[in-house]
Amino acid sequence: MSWKDDLKNLEQDHIAEMLELIRIPSVSTSPDHKADMQKAAEFVAARMQKAGVPEVRIAQSDGHPSVIGRWHVSDDQPTILIYGHYDVQPAEPLELWTTPPFEPTVDGNIIYGRGSSDMKGNLLSAIQGVEASSKANGGQPPVNVSFIFEGEEEIGSPHMIQIIRENRDLLGADAVISADGGQYSADTPSQGVALKGLAGLQVNVTTANTDMHSGGFGAYMPNAIQSLIQLAATFHNEDGHVMVEGFYDRVNELTEADKAEMALLPIDVDKQMADMAVKGLFGESAFTPRERNWGRPTLDFNGIWGGFQGDGVKTVTPAKAHLKITCRLVPDQNPGEIRELIIKHCEKHLPAYASFDVILADGSAKPYVVNREDPVYQAVTDTLVDLYGKEPVITRSGGSVPATAIFQDELGLETITLGWSQDGSRAHAPNEWYSIPDYLRGREGYALLLDKLVR
Amino acid sequence: MSWKDDLKNLEQDHIAEMLELIRIPSVSTSPDHKADMQKAAEFVAARMQKAGVPEVRIAQSDGHPSVIGRWHVSDDQPTILIYGHYDVQPAEPLELWTTPPFEPTVDGNIIYGRGSSDMKGNLLSAIQGVEASSKANGGQPPVNVSFIFEGEEEIGSPHMIQIIRENRDLLGADAVISADGGQYSADTPSQGVALKGLAGLQVNVTTANTDMHSGGFGAYMPNAIQSLIQLAATFHNEDGHVMVEGFYDRVNELTEADKAEMALLPIDVDKQMADMAVKGLFGESAFTPRERNWGRPTLDFNGIWGGFQGDGVKTVTPAKAHLKITCRLVPDQNPGEIRELIIKHCEKHLPAYASFDVILADGSAKPYVVNREDPVYQAVTDTLVDLYGKEPVITRSGGSVPATAIFQDELGLETITLGWSQDGSRAHAPNEWYSIPDYLRGREGYALLLDKLVR
Repeated sequence: MSWKDDLKNLEQDHIAEMLELIRIPSVSTSPDHKADMQKAAEFVAARMQKAGVPEVRIAQSDGHPSVIGRWHVSDDQPTILIYGHYDVQPAEPLELWTTPPFEPTVDGNIIYGRGSSDMKGNLLSAIQGVEASSKANGGQPPVNVSFIFEGEEEIGSPHMIQIIRENRDLLGADAVISADGGQYSADTPSQGVALKGLAGLQVNVTTANTDMHSGGFGAYMPNAIQSLIQLAATFHNEDGHVMVEGFYDRVNELTEADKAEMALLPIDVDKQMADMAVKGLFGESAFTPRERNWGRPTLDFNGIWGGFQGDGVKTVTPAKAHLKITCRLVPDQNPGEIRELIIKHCEKHLPAYASFDVILADGSAKPYVVNREDPVYQAVTDTLVDLYGKEPVITRSGGSVPATAIFQDELGLETITLGWSQDGSRAHAPNEWYSIPDYLRGREGYALLLDKLVR
Repeated sequence: MSWKDDLKNLEQDHIAEMLELIRIPSVSTSPDHKADMQKAAEFVAARMQKAGVPEVRIAQSDGHPSVIGRWHVSDDQPTILIYGHYDVQPAEPLELWTTPPFEPTVDGNIIYGRGSSDMKGNLLSAIQGVEASSKANGGQPPVNVSFIFEGEEEIGSPHMIQIIRENRDLLGADAVISADGGQYSADTPSQGVALKGLAGLQVNVTTANTDMHSGGFGAYMPNAIQSLIQLAATFHNEDGHVMVEGFYDRVNELTEADKAEMALLPIDVDKQMADMAVKGLFGESAFTPRERNWGRPTLDFNGIWGGFQGDGVKTVTPAKAHLKITCRLVPDQNPGEIRELIIKHCEKHLPAYASFDVILADGSAKPYVVNREDPVYQAVTDTLVDLYGKEPVITRSGGSVPATAIFQDELGLETITLGWSQDGSRAHAPNEWYSIPDYLRGREGYALLLDKLVR
C-alpha cells in the first residue's frame, strides 16, 4: 500500500493519539509536573517503537529526559535527525481557557488544548510520516532517520548540550529537520531561515527586610513596587526602543534585501488587532511590524508581582517586588552579554534607596540563520512544492529554538524547519488550537521528505 | 477592692483572653474569613456581657457586624462612646512570619500575632478597664459608657455609616474615645490630634483579549505590564512628590507652629533604617520624615501583578496587569475628589495602545483634626499625666481611621484617642507584636479615665 493510502486509513487513529498526548500535562517549567514529563517521554518512546524505530532511548539528564531514536538503514543514504519537543508551556491563566487545557476538545476541524500547536501535533506527524514511509518501503525508511524529542524547549533547553554529548552515538546526521515550526497559511507553505535568540532573567527588588504599614512609614520609607517601577520604566523609550546601553551594539542591521524579502509577507495587523481587541501597536516605528518581528531584538516583560494582590485593600508598603524579563535576540547578539548589560542597567537606574538581585533564567539561545545552500534545505523546498503545488514563502521567526544553535555548535549541523502550526493558533496563550487537516498533512510531508532525500 | 488591685489579680486571665482573641483570624478583607468575623464579634459581645454591660448588640450590616454596647448609669454624668475594631489585616506574606500569625506566641514580655498591636490588645484593655472600674464602684461604672467595635476598619469602614444610623439608640454620647491608638514610647504618653484620610483604588490595564507568545507578537503588539509601568512611573517625580494634577490643591500647608510641634518628636530614622535594613529614605525632601508622616499626603503602591509569576520562564506577552493604590490624605483633601484626579491622570498618562478600568476600594476616610478644647480631651490628658507622671506629647498619625470622620458627621462627636500600641510593632506587617506591660497598663488607663470624667 502507498504511504498515502495508509495514512488515509489511519486518520482516526492518529487523531486519537494526538488527544492522548495532549492529555498528559507535560509542563516543563513546573516542578509539580515532573511525573507527567516522564509519562510523556514514555509515551513518545513507545510511539517510536511502535513505528518500528529499532533503537529508542529515554536519555536522562539533570533536567527532563529527551527521547532519542536511531533508524539506520544504509551507509549509502543520507541521515536526517528529526528534532522536536514534548514539553509545553504552563496553561495559566486558567480562567481564560474556554475548555480545559489538558482535556483536548475537538470542534469541527480544530483541536483545542495546551501543546496542540506547540508542538504535540507536529511531533506525532513526524513519527507517523516516517512510519508510513517505512511500511510502504518494505519495513524500513528509504533514508536513515534519527530522532531527538527534548523535554525542555519551553524553558530554554538547559540540558540539551549535556544530552547531545552523552548520546552522540545515536545522533550522527547530515542535517537536522526541526518539526517545531509552522506554515505561512493553510494553503501556502513556508520555509524558515532564521530564529531569534533568547536571554532571560528575573529582577528581585528589595527595599527593607519587612513590609511596613503605609500609614506609619509610607511617607518616608522606600516602597519596593515604586522602586521597581522607576527602574522598569527606563528599559524602553516611548517608541519601544530598548534603552539598555550597548543592547544594539552587535545587531546586524537589516539590509535592503532583507527588508524586500520580508515585505513580501506583511503581517495583517488590522486583522490581528481586531481578533485580539488591540487598540494600537507598540515598538520601533522606523520598522514595519514584520521587520520588528523577524529582524529586530526586543526586551519583553513577561511577569511582575509584589505587595498585596488579593481582593480589597491592604495598606502596606511592600519590601519586595519582582520582574521577569526575556529578550529576543538577532545576529550577532550574545545572550550572556545581553544579560550582563541588563544587570548593569539595573545597577545604574534602580533608585539608590533600593537593592536588587537577579535570577538568571535556565537556558538561553543564540540567534540562528539557516544556510540556504544545504541539500536538505533543498529537499524540504521540493517537498513543500509537491505538497502544496507552489513554492514556499521565505520566513523568519520571532521565536527562539535554543536547540538549533546547539546543533550547530555541538554536531556541526544545519537545522531546517518543517512544521504545520499556524499563526494565530495561540501557542503559549489560553485556548491554543491546532487544525486537524494540517495535522494530517504533516504526516504526508514527512513521508514525502524521505522520498526526496533518497540519493 | 480597688480597681488597681483587681486588675493586678487578673493579669494572667487577661493575657489568656488576648491569646484567645488573636487565635480567631478575623481578616475582614477576605471572603474566606466570614465565619471567623462572626466568631470574633461573638467573642467580643460575650466579653462585654461578662464585664456587666447591660445592653449588648451584634449589629448586622451589609458587611461585617459591629458589636455595640450601652451602659447608662446616670443622666447627671457624661457619656463616652468607646470605639475600636476587632478585624485585622491579612497576614500575607506568610513566609515572612517567624511564628504562625494566628497562633499567638509569648516571648518574654512580647506577644507575637496578627492583630496583637492593631488592635485586639487595645480593645480588650478598654473592656477590662471598664469592668474593673465598675466592680470597684459597686457594680456599675461612675459615668455612662457605650461601646462600638466594628469589623471593617482594615477595609475602610464601608458600612460604619449604615450601622451608626441603624443603632443610634445605643450610641448617644458626649465624645468618642478611640482605643485604636498608640503611645509615644513605653514611658512617654502621647495624645493624637490628627489622622490622615484614605482613598484607594485598583487600576486594571488591558492591552488585548488574550495573552500572546512573545516570540510571535512581542516585537509589535502592546504588553500590559510595560503599559502599566509607563503609567505607574508618572505618579511621582524623583523626589517622591505626587504628580497627579490637582493632588495638592486642597492641602493645608504646614504652619511654622505645626512644624515646631512636630519637631519636638523627630523620628529616629537611623534606628528604623538599621532595624529594617533600609538603605535610604523616599519622599519629599523639603519636609522632615516626621512632617511627611504626619503632615503630607502620599500616593502609595500597595500591590502589583501581571503575567507569569511562577518559577522559570514563560515567554508571554501579557494582556492584563494590575496596580493597587492608596492615598493618605491631609486636610482639606477629599477622598472622592482624589480618586477622580487619579482616574484623570490614568486617562492622560496610560499609553494610547492600552485601556484601563478601576475598582474603587471599599471605604475611604476624610482627614481628621481633634478639637483640643473638648473636656474629654482634657480628661484624657489628665489620665495620661496620672498614669505616666508626665505630660503627653502631641502626636498626629500617618494612618487613617475612617470612623473618626463618620462620628463627626453622623453623631456630631469629637474622637479622642487612648491606646497603647508602640511604633515599630509591625502593625499590617509580618511578625506584628504587642507588649504585655503596655496591654496591662491599658486597662488601668481606661479605669482611670472613667474616674476623671466624673462631674
